[in-house]
Amino acid sequence: MTLKLRDWLALCHLPKVGPRRLAELRAAQPAWPDGWLAVLPAPARDALRLWLTRPAASPLEALVERALAWEAASATHHLLYPGHPAWPALLDELSDPPPLLWAWGELSALDAPGLAIVGTRRPTRDGLGNAARFAGELAGAGFCVISGMAMGIDGRAHQAALEAGGPSIGVLGCGIDGVYPARHGALYRAMRETGLLLSEHPPGTRANPAFFPRRNRLITGLSLGVLVVEAAEKSGSLISARLAGEQNREVFALPGSLNNPQARGCLSLIRQGATLVTELDDILAELAHWVPTRAEPPGEPAGAVPPVTPEEPLLALLSDAPTPLDLLIELSGQDVLHCQQRLLEFELEGRVAQVPGGWVRLPTA
Amino acid sequence: MTLKLRDWLALCHLPKVGPRRLAELRAAQPAWPDGWLAVLPAPARDALRLWLTRPAASPLEALVERALAWEAASATHHLLYPGHPAWPALLDELSDPPPLLWAWGELSALDAPGLAIVGTRRPTRDGLGNAARFAGELAGAGFCVISGMAMGIDGRAHQAALEAGGPSIGVLGCGIDGVYPARHGALYRAMRETGLLLSEHPPGTRANPAFFPRRNRLITGLSLGVLVVEAAEKSGSLISARLAGEQNREVFALPGSLNNPQARGCLSLIRQGATLVTELDDILAELAHWVPTRAEPPGEPAGAVPPVTPEEPLLALLSDAPTPLDLLIELSGQDVLHCQQRLLEFELEGRVAQVPGGWVRLPTA
Repeated sequence: MTLKLRDWLALCHLPKVGPRRLAELRAAQPAWPDGWLAVLPAPARDALRLWLTRPAASPLEALVERALAWEAASATHHLLYPGHPAWPALLDELSDPPPLLWAWGELSALDAPGLAIVGTRRPTRDGLGNAARFAGELAGAGFCVISGMAMGIDGRAHQAALEAGGPSIGVLGCGIDGVYPARHGALYRAMRETGLLLSEHPPGTRANPAFFPRRNRLITGLSLGVLVVEAAEKSGSLISARLAGEQNREVFALPGSLNNPQARGCLSLIRQGATLVTELDDILAELAHWVPTRAEPPGEPAGAVPPVTPEEPLLALLSDAPTPLDLLIELSGQDVLHCQQRLLEFELEGRVAQVPGGWVRLPTA
Repeated sequence: MTLKLRDWLALCHLPKVGPRRLAELRAAQPAWPDGWLAVLPAPARDALRLWLTRPAASPLEALVERALAWEAASATHHLLYPGHPAWPALLDELSDPPPLLWAWGELSALDAPGLAIVGTRRPTRDGLGNAARFAGELAGAGFCVISGMAMGIDGRAHQAALEAGGPSIGVLGCGIDGVYPARHGALYRAMRETGLLLSEHPPGTRANPAFFPRRNRLITGLSLGVLVVEAAEKSGSLISARLAGEQNREVFALPGSLNNPQARGCLSLIRQGATLVTELDDILAELAHWVPTRAEPPGEPAGAVPPVTPEEPLLALLSDAPTPLDLLIELSGQDVLHCQQRLLEFELEGRVAQVPGGWVRLPTA
């Protein structure tokens, strides 16, 4: 049997299994459901077994239904997961990719190369102006401006990107239906209409500062680089910049006067090697040589795990019982040439084999 | 015969012999006057011979007299030349050290380690405040603030250094008695009283933009490093910073907003590797490890040329006729130990030799 979205949603809500563990388990490609039951830790195994056998008695079922109901409620509601056609490949580079993203708005925002703009919630006029200028210019250059919907730099960057007709992604530290801060109500509405909101948290989840570090990690994880517009020393924006560096993202910083406390963080970053930016070209110059590489990666990024379903539909269709090629073609909806090529690649990787009667999936080493 | 100040003044005014050529000729240590006559180019040789034989008929004599008369006119007037006890050793590192510096004020200003502060003549309020702050703090840390007496950053730096009770050196692009710009009259008076003015130009020389590049080269040449406070792109301050780099001086720059045109030059410098400064400690940290080295250099700096007279009085006292040690001690005013040690060093360098009857000077290789 193939792992379906419902099943994945159940796995995403298992007790004692966090994003990192879930990614590791998934990388082992256990068969569904027995393989999963075999590798899960005890409490999660028991919860999953209950859900599989008596869903009505399982608390997981309500969570699965809630997610599916939310997605069904609007054409602008989406559940994103590894393998979803719109799933951002950059997230597969993270050691703890989110197992599930609640998404509200235009999924096409994920198609453009992303650049994060972050900064203080208490910017100077100069800082606000710079946020608007660079967000607008990045949008004009085909980038998606990604930020955290907070007051100050974040909000101004989103707003300016939308005003320039570009896409923008807001990553939330509250449930996907939340509006935090409340004063950003109009911005939230605009983002849902022409931008995209993402959250790891289901509807109804209140904003919680404890969520912000993970939220920040997603902002930079979705981006090729992060531009820090204004940031005090020891501020959250500096943590985002550090995360970005750890994620091998480019770090850009706008300089400011030494007498502007909100510039001190940026100046520290520049001292530590961040690219000093005065013009859009300073950003483009750093990204130019690897934007194309990102779009067509030469191979599997390190630590990447195979997707749940659609990205490798052929693998999902295979089991240890032989499947004929013509059936694989029919079920996958792919053309002959593509199927043969993919199967050859999987064969070379030792993941499938041709046997009398068709193709089988091999157990992972 | 020993080269005397009068002789050097005549050499400094020879036609067709510039600072670089003069330094090269001096490095050859020709005997006075025949050796000099032998190595000088024709027009200079003729001029020198005339001055030596019929000074009254030589235009050089008036120039020599003018310089000596100016020095004699006030206890605060000084003529500085290589070998003068107050001659700044850092200038010997230049390829074209000034052969003569007219000095007006407190020579003790040359004792403190120098740091240049330069910047635009049209600073922002922020820039002026920064110039004053860093000049005051540097003065408090025992530095001599060196600049060019211009409007804007220069003037504010001098003023703040004096107000903090520190020494300050102003290098002029006009004659030593000039006041340019005229609005800095009060600052000029204060500098002559408690600071020090230096010029390569004799009294009466009008300010000339053509002099500024050499003036700038002296400002940085006298300094361990240069702090650029505010500078537009393609400004004179950036040329000073480049010169400083070529002279192996440290280059420091204050950051500013990308929206401040007067910060763009500093931001360019930071991009090119200048030390980004937000605190005095940023400067001290860079200089700490070589201020002591500068004070007691481990050996002769590259390209250094021997001084005219006082710095190596023993050499000046020696000739090819043997001089007894006790006479050397008496004439030099140095103690026995010092004389013996210096003679040993010169002997090892192949510049002197001990012969029956005393010490002789050897011809340079």
